[in-house]
Amino acid sequence: MYSVSMAVVGERLYERVAGRVKDQILKRTYRPGDRLPSVRELSRAYKVSITTVLDAYRLLEDQGYIHPRPQSGHYVRSRPNQIIAEPDRTRPKFEPAEFRREVLMDQIMHDAHRPGVVSLALATPGPHLRPEGKLNRVANQILRDFPSDAYNYTEINGYQPLREQIAQRLFEAGCSVSPDDVVITNGCQEALVLALNVVCRPGGVVAVESPCYYGVLATTRMVGLKAVEIETRSREGMCIDRLEEALATAYGTDGQIQAVLISTNFGNPLGGQLSDVDKQRLVQVCQRYEATIIEDDVYGELGFDDSRPSVAKAYDDSDNVLLCSSFSKTLAPGLRVGWVVSGKYRTKIERAKHVTTISTASLPQLIVAEFLSNGGYDHYLRKARKAYAANMQQMSDAIVRHFPEGTRMTRPVGGFVLWVELPPEVNTIALYGKTVEEGVTFTPGILFSAHDQYRNFMRLAASVWDNRTEQAVALIGQMAKSMRMP
Amino acid sequence: MYSVSMAVVGERLYERVAGRVKDQILKRTYRPGDRLPSVRELSRAYKVSITTVLDAYRLLEDQGYIHPRPQSGHYVRSRPNQIIAEPDRTRPKFEPAEFRREVLMDQIMHDAHRPGVVSLALATPGPHLRPEGKLNRVANQILRDFPSDAYNYTEINGYQPLREQIAQRLFEAGCSVSPDDVVITNGCQEALVLALNVVCRPGGVVAVESPCYYGVLATTRMVGLKAVEIETRSREGMCIDRLEEALATAYGTDGQIQAVLISTNFGNPLGGQLSDVDKQRLVQVCQRYEATIIEDDVYGELGFDDSRPSVAKAYDDSDNVLLCSSFSKTLAPGLRVGWVVSGKYRTKIERAKHVTTISTASLPQLIVAEFLSNGGYDHYLRKARKAYAANMQQMSDAIVRHFPEGTRMTRPVGGFVLWVELPPEVNTIALYGKTVEEGVTFTPGILFSAHDQYRNFMRLAASVWDNRTEQAVALIGQMAKSMRMP
Repeated sequence: MYSVSMAVVGERLYERVAGRVKDQILKRTYRPGDRLPSVRELSRAYKVSITTVLDAYRLLEDQGYIHPRPQSGHYVRSRPNQIIAEPDRTRPKFEPAEFRREVLMDQIMHDAHRPGVVSLALATPGPHLRPEGKLNRVANQILRDFPSDAYNYTEINGYQPLREQIAQRLFEAGCSVSPDDVVITNGCQEALVLALNVVCRPGGVVAVESPCYYGVLATTRMVGLKAVEIETRSREGMCIDRLEEALATAYGTDGQIQAVLISTNFGNPLGGQLSDVDKQRLVQVCQRYEATIIEDDVYGELGFDDSRPSVAKAYDDSDNVLLCSSFSKTLAPGLRVGWVVSGKYRTKIERAKHVTTISTASLPQLIVAEFLSNGGYDHYLRKARKAYAANMQQMSDAIVRHFPEGTRMTRPVGGFVLWVELPPEVNTIALYGKTVEEGVTFTPGILFSAHDQYRNFMRLAASVWDNRTEQAVALIGQMAKSMRMP
Repeated sequence: MYSVSMAVVGERLYERVAGRVKDQILKRTYRPGDRLPSVRELSRAYKVSITTVLDAYRLLEDQGYIHPRPQSGHYVRSRPNQIIAEPDRTRPKFEPAEFRREVLMDQIMHDAHRPGVVSLALATPGPHLRPEGKLNRVANQILRDFPSDAYNYTEINGYQPLREQIAQRLFEAGCSVSPDDVVITNGCQEALVLALNVVCRPGGVVAVESPCYYGVLATTRMVGLKAVEIETRSREGMCIDRLEEALATAYGTDGQIQAVLISTNFGNPLGGQLSDVDKQRLVQVCQRYEATIIEDDVYGELGFDDSRPSVAKAYDDSDNVLLCSSFSKTLAPGLRVGWVVSGKYRTKIERAKHVTTISTASLPQLIVAEFLSNGGYDHYLRKARKAYAANMQQMSDAIVRHFPEGTRMTRPVGGFVLWVELPPEVNTIALYGKTVEEGVTFTPGILFSAHDQYRNFMRLAASVWDNRTEQAVALIGQMAKSMRMP
């Protein structure tokens, strides 16, 4: 049995509305699977604003009583009592550190690729969703009509029509950027490396989220930087107040923070999202302290409410945000097509790109450009978002069923990874050692910090949901339970 | 009229044989276009060894009297009097320096991609030679039969069948490497970056050729290293005696040389080749001074005599050579498929690859692997080698016709670039400024050193030879001549 840890301070209007709805569910006026009144109906009926009803439904959703279905409405969940809390707010150590977990990182990558392994470790998109037929047709057409473009170098900064498509999509996210501001990279990882290389001095300090994707931590170390991990909330993203404190700090001989590397939408592993107000505050605070923002938007198009959220770059009047992303989480990681909006760093970034990898492989760039322009991409994205929302729900439900009491987990609003907090006595490195022997892997929590943190946490990828995945979750849960035995 | 600057000290047997043959040419016993006696015939006739005849023919070739045709024999050249000397031996400054010519490098790349420009600046393979039909068929087959492999990540170190093919080809070059030693990269450039990153400490010193490909110089600077430029001869490659002196030197606070980055076959821009003896000496000397060899073999399969030359890695008993190469000079640069033989640095290189670009784009890797294994590659290579040998001859002849008196140039035995020394008063940066206005570009010599050298040199790419190329060479020559006017 799980308990709700949601603290209610006083009762606000939306909480009262939520209470009424909850009463009806507990009285079984609305049964599991039933559709609840629409937001508009409830607003009229109770003479409250649309916003109040939305807040009320969000609260009930948080409490596990209801769940939304895109373009359909809100429905009563099947196990209203089996709700699970979100992980506690993180309290990272407030000092720069070098990431030194590369050996474990290598091992997990290696294990994940072993034949027969069910890997919940890799945050890669579901291959069954991929529009391979369409991509193949696009590829065949390019090879037939433009073989020279496919085999020659593109410009250093990438294929012009692709840069145009990306600039158009960014315009829809509130950013006014020119195609010439975009530099195509080998995935978002290269975009981050280039950005860190041109922004930071070796030995410098960069602020990151906590928990933070290990690829980011390893990259900061690779380019000779130390990372300060900033408290990050599973719903609201990085705490801007804490970031401001860190920016105001002089870290001994390391100096002040030179860059803030941050996911503003559906970050990895927490899946939270900065509000528009916090995105603006982030831009203002970083400008004040002369720290450059390196914004990682790799999950930005995978929000479950099917709209494109804004990015911090949209509030960037002073050209202080380097926006990085890729098609690796949306379309196909093997294409290795990412980008960075280079702004005032354009010359430096193009030069760094030139002398490290010259240009990005041409054929994948042409495939993505053509796929974006013929309109197949948005249709595919809508399908993928629904599938990931459903998979995340399925995995969450399975965790409720199989994991030990006291488990907490995130309720992401986008992306396809879950961050799970197990009871303190469950060391997830020890647990990993057990599950990998049974052919099941996940990502242990200690990889998500340069400090000794998150020993009882794990990240699970829910991009695929099938019987094998469900059995894998069950196995991890059972083994975790057995580790709690005296 | 050109003069021969070849110094003859005493007369050896092969020189005497060469003198006899030359006499017959001057007497017009053998006229331009005539086939000379075969090596075997001459050996019998003059009762000298095969080697002596080969040396004699090589000397006449150097002097411009004759030229070889693969699998056919030696022929009298059409303009026996219009012979041109090779550039003088280089005398680089013997101190480490940082390359600071990035702005010029950017400009030249930019100009080369401008519409309508005839670029002799870019060292890219001839697109007309490329087997696009075969590559397309291979690509279509992969997309039909293995779409998942094409769109998912490969392993971090690359697609296993491609690594197997590369290991097999390296075996033919005398190297015994396992497919697991190979790490696939985004072209040779990324291979060099990864190698430098794992071998050298920031602030360290690396030895390079002089003149040296500017991409290598810029890369050393990008990863925080200084370069010591070592005397390199246009035929024989880097001077191992001078390298040994440099290795024995402690460069003040920068310390000793940590790595030697070297092209052992058909280097860029000189097109020379280390002898097998020098390749062995290179390995021994570097081992003695504990410097790692980073061997750039990107032109290694483009030797004009149609055999695969050995590499230094073939003599590497102590795992001290990181062999780097790609398919960018042979097949297609836009595929961005290169590799490094990682040896004892395997873990470090795979990790660096993982956190900078994760893995190389999958579809290009699959295309190359399939093309290598179905046997089309060697057939294509034979065709390409002949074409490049012919193009280089055409371009050399055009330079003889159009360039000012006192011009010298290399006579490469592989690859497709020429290194041209103009009279001292012709500044090739000023010349570039003039030709680019007429839509013709080349690479000015000062890009090939971190010191102020090679002001009257240029590199010309001869991968394509057609009327436009010939006119471009003529234009450069005329403008160079006009710069000599008082």
